[in-house]
Amino acid sequence: MNIKQRTWEIVEAAQDNDKASWYFDVFIMLLIALNIFASILESVATLELAYLQYFSLFEIFSVTIFTIEYLARLWSCTTSPDYQNPIKGRIRFIFSPMSLIDLFAIGPFFIPFIGYDLRTLRALRLFRVLRLAKASRYSKSLELIKKVVDSRKEELVITTIFMATFLLASSTVLYFCENPTQPDKFSSIPATMWWAIATLTTVGYGDIYPITALGKVCASIFAILGIGMFALPTGILGAGFVEEIQKKKTKLVCPHCQKEIKK
Amino acid sequence: MNIKQRTWEIVEAAQDNDKASWYFDVFIMLLIALNIFASILESVATLELAYLQYFSLFEIFSVTIFTIEYLARLWSCTTSPDYQNPIKGRIRFIFSPMSLIDLFAIGPFFIPFIGYDLRTLRALRLFRVLRLAKASRYSKSLELIKKVVDSRKEELVITTIFMATFLLASSTVLYFCENPTQPDKFSSIPATMWWAIATLTTVGYGDIYPITALGKVCASIFAILGIGMFALPTGILGAGFVEEIQKKKTKLVCPHCQKEIKK
Amino acid sequence: MNIKQRTWEIVEAAQDNDKASWYFDVFIMLLIALNIFASILESVATLELAYLQYFSLFEIFSVTIFTIEYLARLWSCTTSPDYQNPIKGRIRFIFSPMSLIDLFAIGPFFIPFIGYDLRTLRALRLFRVLRLAKASRYSKSLELIKKVVDSRKEELVITTIFMATFLLASSTVLYFCENPTQPDKFSSIPATMWWAIATLTTVGYGDIYPITALGKVCASIFAILGIGMFALPTGILGAGFVEEIQKKKTKLVCPHCQKEIKK
Amino acid sequence: MNIKQRTWEIVEAAQDNDKASWYFDVFIMLLIALNIFASILESVATLELAYLQYFSLFEIFSVTIFTIEYLARLWSCTTSPDYQNPIKGRIRFIFSPMSLIDLFAIGPFFIPFIGYDLRTLRALRLFRVLRLAKASRYSKSLELIKKVVDSRKEELVITTIFMATFLLASSTVLYFCENPTQPDKFSSIPATMWWAIATLTTVGYGDIYPITALGKVCASIFAILGIGMFALPTGILGAGFVEEIQKKKTKLVCPHCQKEIKK
Repeated sequence: MNIKQRTWEIVEAAQDNDKASWYFDVFIMLLIALNIFASILESVATLELAYLQYFSLFEIFSVTIFTIEYLARLWSCTTSPDYQNPIKGRIRFIFSPMSLIDLFAIGPFFIPFIGYDLRTLRALRLFRVLRLAKASRYSKSLELIKKVVDSRKEELVITTIFMATFLLASSTVLYFCENPTQPDKFSSIPATMWWAIATLTTVGYGDIYPITALGKVCASIFAILGIGMFALPTGILGAGFVEEIQKKKTKLVCPHCQKEIKK
Repeated sequence: MNIKQRTWEIVEAAQDNDKASWYFDVFIMLLIALNIFASILESVATLELAYLQYFSLFEIFSVTIFTIEYLARLWSCTTSPDYQNPIKGRIRFIFSPMSLIDLFAIGPFFIPFIGYDLRTLRALRLFRVLRLAKASRYSKSLELIKKVVDSRKEELVITTIFMATFLLASSTVLYFCENPTQPDKFSSIPATMWWAIATLTTVGYGDIYPITALGKVCASIFAILGIGMFALPTGILGAGFVEEIQKKKTKLVCPHCQKEIKK
Repeated sequence: MNIKQRTWEIVEAAQDNDKASWYFDVFIMLLIALNIFASILESVATLELAYLQYFSLFEIFSVTIFTIEYLARLWSCTTSPDYQNPIKGRIRFIFSPMSLIDLFAIGPFFIPFIGYDLRTLRALRLFRVLRLAKASRYSKSLELIKKVVDSRKEELVITTIFMATFLLASSTVLYFCENPTQPDKFSSIPATMWWAIATLTTVGYGDIYPITALGKVCASIFAILGIGMFALPTGILGAGFVEEIQKKKTKLVCPHCQKEIKK
Repeated sequence: MNIKQRTWEIVEAAQDNDKASWYFDVFIMLLIALNIFASILESVATLELAYLQYFSLFEIFSVTIFTIEYLARLWSCTTSPDYQNPIKGRIRFIFSPMSLIDLFAIGPFFIPFIGYDLRTLRALRLFRVLRLAKASRYSKSLELIKKVVDSRKEELVITTIFMATFLLASSTVLYFCENPTQPDKFSSIPATMWWAIATLTTVGYGDIYPITALGKVCASIFAILGIGMFALPTGILGAGFVEEIQKKKTKLVCPHCQKEIKK
């Protein structure tokens, strides 16, 4: 086993009992978490002004580590059967979703544009938290979720179409009901969609609501019918979870021969 | 196969491997989608003023296509066993729900009333999207939904009665609680129903809410009891989905004879 | 069969194929529905002033019918094995819940107090809608609901205790967080309970909400934990429905002997 | 059986048919309930001023009883095999969660700090209601809840991670959308989290909401996707309840030999 292969194992594809890889993972995770925490704190104006130099130092430190990690991945990725070719494999590695996220996380630092742009893009570092998904202990649950979404794809697609149609229909009706009375709030169908989403998701901020009798009657009917519709995806996925879990757990065994009664 | 029969096949009742019919369907769907999109954009005042002539041209183009399609359906519908009689069959075809929607979608254009009326009715074009339901790939899911609603009809009817009674009871009580203190907001029982619906669906815009102690106590009790009631239809339909799907999927097979254990 | 027995059959305990009883039921139901509708319309000030005499006439007509019905029930109730004794049975009949509702529905009319009191008590007529529950065709669904609530009594009781404790705890904490900053809104723990109920039921009117950082953090934690808790009763009842319905429907039959595999 | 053992039985670990212990439990529960009720009433300023001396007397009475109870527990706890050692056992008893709650409930009274501190800590008395959990009749339901939470631990952990990530992502995006337009409301990412929680839990107070077109589009997408995510824990626990209850109830029995078909 050469150094390149070992590097790859540590940064990317380690086995469960590989201590070095585990410590590396934990360290990177912690750094990502601290980066996210720093981004949040930095957004508070008073804190940013008071601790500007500390934030800058931490930023330099983080980007250095992340850059070394990225280069190590890029260098050692040829060990993997997926990216064997030194040129083509590495290019494919760069354009893999996870690597792009890593690149977006460190890229802005090296672009000499200062200020707004840099800060916005740094928010992409947040998505590095997705690396958590690789942690083997949660992979079963993630697989379960993926399986359920897959098995319910058709229902979800048709529910989405229903939801979109309903959203459109309710926005159109309410627009014609309320626009003459509240031309500033229900100013157009897209503006009315904001009302429809706030209502059908039951958030109801209260910044926009019907005031005419007809508008209120229509809104009531749409609310009662539509809320169930917007709750259906959750219900479908919930039912999918129950089914998938029961499929795993319930085995019927014949008392005569101990054979399983197959479903 | 004559031209009339072929026309009917293309516009209405095509088989899955009929290319011409498929392209026609896709074209009409796209045109409906573009019409809906245009209606939404047109409702934005600034866009309407700026691109008035483009909207008009697209309108003329769409109505022309839809009219040709409608006449083609009307002409060829006698091919179908459902509408065989040239006069009676065609009249029955005109009054079928889908044809009425199509007629409402093109009708307003030919009526010489300009402005508000025209635009309102044009919104009916939206419902042409229901034609999607015929697309064979979604028919299974639609059947499932219909089956579940049918099998739960009784529960849904009784839940609706409960909901209506609860709505009425809570509105009446809150009206008597709040009317003396807020005569402008809780001005009548129908006005209080708007409060009740906003509360029981948990939308809670905040335009109307109790301010007296008694009103708040009653509203709290109604909210805690009623929200569950208003969530029951979703729960019942959700449970119906689980059952219907499980009915399809779980077959028990006896290990001795491989026969299915019937449910 | 004497007249008294026939009267009892018509007003109260009819068999399914008894035409006269069915027409009587439908008539009373319609009158109840119209009374409710009239109460709602009467609460609209403009309508009440404009049609005062019609409302009065309808009131006199309704009360006359309901009084005759009540007296017919009271006279003929001795036919029923439940109320056989002419004096004791009739007294027990008067104090049965359904009869009390009937009495409350007609009583206020005969009391010579005019105005507010009369109108308030007239709202009790609303509860006559509970008679709808007697409609035999829905009795199966009602039995199902009763069965589910009974079978989940213990879970519902403990969930209610949890909810009450959680409500109290969150109100107490938020009171201490927000009272110093908003002494007019979070003025006492009972006042804060109104906030807690609006939040935990996700109604969120927006008349009262935390503004301090600590209050917002606590409110967020309470909201995320508590909403699930307040949704549990619906979930428990929903699960109960699934179970009860599946119990009825799924019978496993052995392929060798066609006997049912008992659960 | 000596007095110490009997005392322990009465205050702590009684059998179901022990009358004295049952009366003691009921008395303490009632006193706790009255204490909670008194705390709530005392928070209402007008009531506190009017009945100050009654509240003080009740306070002295309650603390006396609770102190005697606490000392009785501490004295007799050595009877229990868990706390046998007179010194070490008693120290372990003092630091058991239930005993700490009891201590916090009476402690503040004896500390000579008057006013705010005392009142805040007295709220801890609320948690003494947890003693109800020992009541044998609810222990089954509690066990069920514990079992369900345990069996769904993994799903709940991963859902929590997803929720936290989603909360962070939506707050970050909305902060960058709305901060330039509403710098006072969306002042920082933590401030935007308050918006995100109010939205994703569908509470929607209406104190903070996006006003820019981009912000509204993003908020709509986050709301539609995120609300399902925030409803998943309830769904997962609900499904867990169904499964756990069905596991208990459905036994398949072979019609030939009456043996159970094992799952």
